[in-house]
Amino acid sequence: MNELQPIALEREGATAELVVANGRVYVSNRREFLERDVAVVGDRIAALLTDAESVIGPDTTVVDASDRVVLPGLIDAHTHADIQVTPERAAPAMLAGGTTSIVTETSGLGLLFGSRGVELTLERTADLPVTAYLTLPPQWFVDTFEPERGDDAELEAFVDLLVRERVVGVGEIDWIHVVDRESPVERLYDRARDADATIVGHGAGCRGDSLRAFATVVDNDHEAIDADGIRERAEHGIHVVGRCGSNRDDIDALAAAAPDLDRGSVSLSTDGVWPADLVDGVGMADVVRRAIEADVPERDAIDAATRNPAAHFGLEGRGVVAPGAFADLLVVDGLESMAVQTVVADGEVVVADGTPNIEPRTDPYPDSVTDTVSVDCDADRFTAPLEAAPDGVVRAMEVGQGLVTTETTVEPAVHEAVADERGDGTAATDARLGPDPDADVLTATLIDRDPATDDRAFTGFLAGYGLETGAVATTAVWETPGLATVAADTADAVVAAERVAELGGGFAVARDGAIVADLPTPVGATAADAPVEEVAAGVEALEATLRESGVGVADPLLTVQTLIFVGVPTLKLTASGYADVLGRSRVGLEPTADPES
Amino acid sequence: MNELQPIALEREGATAELVVANGRVYVSNRREFLERDVAVVGDRIAALLTDAESVIGPDTTVVDASDRVVLPGLIDAHTHADIQVTPERAAPAMLAGGTTSIVTETSGLGLLFGSRGVELTLERTADLPVTAYLTLPPQWFVDTFEPERGDDAELEAFVDLLVRERVVGVGEIDWIHVVDRESPVERLYDRARDADATIVGHGAGCRGDSLRAFATVVDNDHEAIDADGIRERAEHGIHVVGRCGSNRDDIDALAAAAPDLDRGSVSLSTDGVWPADLVDGVGMADVVRRAIEADVPERDAIDAATRNPAAHFGLEGRGVVAPGAFADLLVVDGLESMAVQTVVADGEVVVADGTPNIEPRTDPYPDSVTDTVSVDCDADRFTAPLEAAPDGVVRAMEVGQGLVTTETTVEPAVHEAVADERGDGTAATDARLGPDPDADVLTATLIDRDPATDDRAFTGFLAGYGLETGAVATTAVWETPGLATVAADTADAVVAAERVAELGGGFAVARDGAIVADLPTPVGATAADAPVEEVAAGVEALEATLRESGVGVADPLLTVQTLIFVGVPTLKLTASGYADVLGRSRVGLEPTADPES
Repeated sequence: MNELQPIALEREGATAELVVANGRVYVSNRREFLERDVAVVGDRIAALLTDAESVIGPDTTVVDASDRVVLPGLIDAHTHADIQVTPERAAPAMLAGGTTSIVTETSGLGLLFGSRGVELTLERTADLPVTAYLTLPPQWFVDTFEPERGDDAELEAFVDLLVRERVVGVGEIDWIHVVDRESPVERLYDRARDADATIVGHGAGCRGDSLRAFATVVDNDHEAIDADGIRERAEHGIHVVGRCGSNRDDIDALAAAAPDLDRGSVSLSTDGVWPADLVDGVGMADVVRRAIEADVPERDAIDAATRNPAAHFGLEGRGVVAPGAFADLLVVDGLESMAVQTVVADGEVVVADGTPNIEPRTDPYPDSVTDTVSVDCDADRFTAPLEAAPDGVVRAMEVGQGLVTTETTVEPAVHEAVADERGDGTAATDARLGPDPDADVLTATLIDRDPATDDRAFTGFLAGYGLETGAVATTAVWETPGLATVAADTADAVVAAERVAELGGGFAVARDGAIVADLPTPVGATAADAPVEEVAAGVEALEATLRESGVGVADPLLTVQTLIFVGVPTLKLTASGYADVLGRSRVGLEPTADPES
Repeated sequence: MNELQPIALEREGATAELVVANGRVYVSNRREFLERDVAVVGDRIAALLTDAESVIGPDTTVVDASDRVVLPGLIDAHTHADIQVTPERAAPAMLAGGTTSIVTETSGLGLLFGSRGVELTLERTADLPVTAYLTLPPQWFVDTFEPERGDDAELEAFVDLLVRERVVGVGEIDWIHVVDRESPVERLYDRARDADATIVGHGAGCRGDSLRAFATVVDNDHEAIDADGIRERAEHGIHVVGRCGSNRDDIDALAAAAPDLDRGSVSLSTDGVWPADLVDGVGMADVVRRAIEADVPERDAIDAATRNPAAHFGLEGRGVVAPGAFADLLVVDGLESMAVQTVVADGEVVVADGTPNIEPRTDPYPDSVTDTVSVDCDADRFTAPLEAAPDGVVRAMEVGQGLVTTETTVEPAVHEAVADERGDGTAATDARLGPDPDADVLTATLIDRDPATDDRAFTGFLAGYGLETGAVATTAVWETPGLATVAADTADAVVAAERVAELGGGFAVARDGAIVADLPTPVGATAADAPVEEVAAGVEALEATLRESGVGVADPLLTVQTLIFVGVPTLKLTASGYADVLGRSRVGLEPTADPES
């Protein structure tokens, strides 16, 4: 007889460790709110009783949920919990936001170190009160704009990871890598399908025949931003993941499409909650509230944040309040407010009266993880060769809506030889193309940080960002191990990049040869290992500095971090040239040049 | 690029192997019927196109589904496909009934041979056009009435099987074995949970605190026969499996409870379709029709026979018409008739114009499987010792509703020494207790067939069956390897049992010392390896013979086959005494005796 049965049977002397009493409990298989007491033993729900008094003993913790609603702990179906700040640091805030499980990309250490990074992420998130399910980074086997980084041994290491308990599948792939072209990542997908693993899609802008083709590859997608796109995904069997987080709020689109969807084929996600929002309490409770506010039926919204992602990703024992399931419980004031009162994770009360009663873990990361930035910051790397603009005009990115950068042309400034830094009186460089902030022309540089290929760097140009002076640098770029700068001044680009390298990764803004703001993110050079409040304040200070320097975009740092992110169109930065995203080719500075590859 | 994409992209020259054209296709994630052409490549659905003309080539098979409805192939969420007749023989009839996948118990070879039997069932069902997902027989680790048959090595062999591709979990367990008692099967369940396997329940009559306790053990149950029982199961997180097959039709109960259930937490099943019904076309299409007729909403009924069981059991790629899924398709005239026109299984047209176009497989089973009956048929084994009835009265089973047998008392006949069979002039036996058909007293005998324990046999008594003369014997008993007889005449019991042994297993009816009807079921002694029509005719002949001899129960053979089945109450037969099912103890013939164990 398992340890739950004595409670279920209300055997004489059997006492529960925890009882959440007197609440209106959402019973998923009935889709009904029933007045029940939830009795917990260990990390599991033992029974739903009409009155748990008989199993309450002197050592039983009793949470009174009178006049409140008891829900399954909420699941974030898609997030990036390992960038910006470590998941260990973020966990208490996540829990306070109602999130007890996450399906997270391994966009930090996984992207940087591959299978070894995923292993490390598994270790670091083991027994975290927020249960972290991981996906593997397919970027290792993508060759659309840059050579594939993974080899056969790495593929096998990935496959071995697929059967690990908290590894649920392969993370998001931009559709451009796999639709209508051969890609080495198909090897991984074949193996993932053999292992019944889930394949995450990233179909931003994908529609029509491309979407049909993408549907043969992926199982879900969180990138539909209008109702038609959602309906189209559902028609082709793609599980729809609605999104509301630090990057975007697509809930209205989901609500509009909801009547045309199977309610079981929809999940909710944040796609990432950055420190400032974590501090503000943004979490899955907020996403559910937002969905209900947008007229998604209450129980559909709850299911989309509980049982649906659990079923879609195979998160055994999660997402329902039922005997034998993990005791992840959320007590909220009501469904309109979704104000979190109490959170139970794996049987432990981790949030009481809306406040986390656990501290973030602070055990340090090994040096191998925090000392990964070794880049050559020679000034030439932050400018372009004069020959690239025989007619004075170069291809450039232009900041568009959200994370989109479109293609344009600009006339860069021609800088004479940079001042001698060698001390021997000779000029270090010839004349180069550089920024001309008065003409809205900035340099945008990506230096490869992968030790295998860190001789690569490319400087392109950016319009529409608005920086009038100085430079910003960061290693916290998306989907590639690199160091990116955007500069109105080349010397400041060097200063900012060097500071970021000194920090072991992070962000820095330089002006007039000096650092004016910085923030270390040393874990894999992409995540801070510091209190979330501190990180949020650091980001705010950096952004304020940039705004002072003229930057007018909504998210001054995110724009820089995603300049290299080919998941959104149309012209992006690689360490070897521009990525013409929709053309799926690499292109150079010369506006008329043919695609290189 | 996978082989499906050229079709999805309608690339020049790309042709589908099969197109199901012009139908109203049920698109599960939309819960909508859309006019689409379904294009198939290999065993997978490549695309849903509004017009597939561009991918139809000279070698493309085109199925015209004009004015018809195209559904995902139907899944039977719980059946016993390996008893009565082999799955290979039954497959064409199953397909004609709309069933393309089954989740089947391994109640034949699995029960008899354990892991080796499951292995063999996997082999025999490999690449069968009906995809057979198997569950492991937990009975090997049950000790409620008889000693546990499995040892540690066998447990490990079971655990190894759990990760095999078509093994989805552990098969049905009667709640009496695992509620409120220690059971060795918990070892198997612990391992099954570690492997995220599904655990099937059999909760006939289970309710209240017992049901709460059972819910801590099992994931689903198909034994609720009224609406309250269904609601109660759903409340406690048990996936409800509705049933309509050869044994029972519980659809009205499901329909009554349906408004109170999460529609995604319900599956449909047959719980077994016996040969006569297979011949009559009974299959999952019929079950869905029945559910719709009972006012289960159409799309809920379809989901319960497609995507829901696929999700619950983790049948990857089944249960939806979507790109990348297996091409299991069902073309029906309409949802009211559910008349099956065409069936596609794994991309092959296996039923056309309602008729299977494939033959059953007939490759013979090895002798080790068909030669398993070696029992001692000494006459004494079919009677009871005189001492068992000091007052002339013994405990007896009485045939009740359905498969239920209740407890009663009867006065058996006292038979003088049976005629000398030794040839030396001495009586072979002392006086014994035997049948008295005129007083509605029959003997009911179970002889153990397990080579390890085949010295065991028990003769009890049965009232209410109605047999006036002769005897019936069968090895096709449920959940235990045995040979059972019910006799109005002890000599005929011997004749019938010996015939069954000669057949290598099966059924036989004897009268006046001669066999009047028989049917071989030599595969594990529980399944016929013969055309289903022939088996159905054999069963009919046997039952007609029994009815001629006075048997009045609805299913004359099934009553005998289930006398030993402790899954229904209350007094059953074991090879060592009666099983007092609800008392969970073994009891003897003496009505006043205390439970033995």
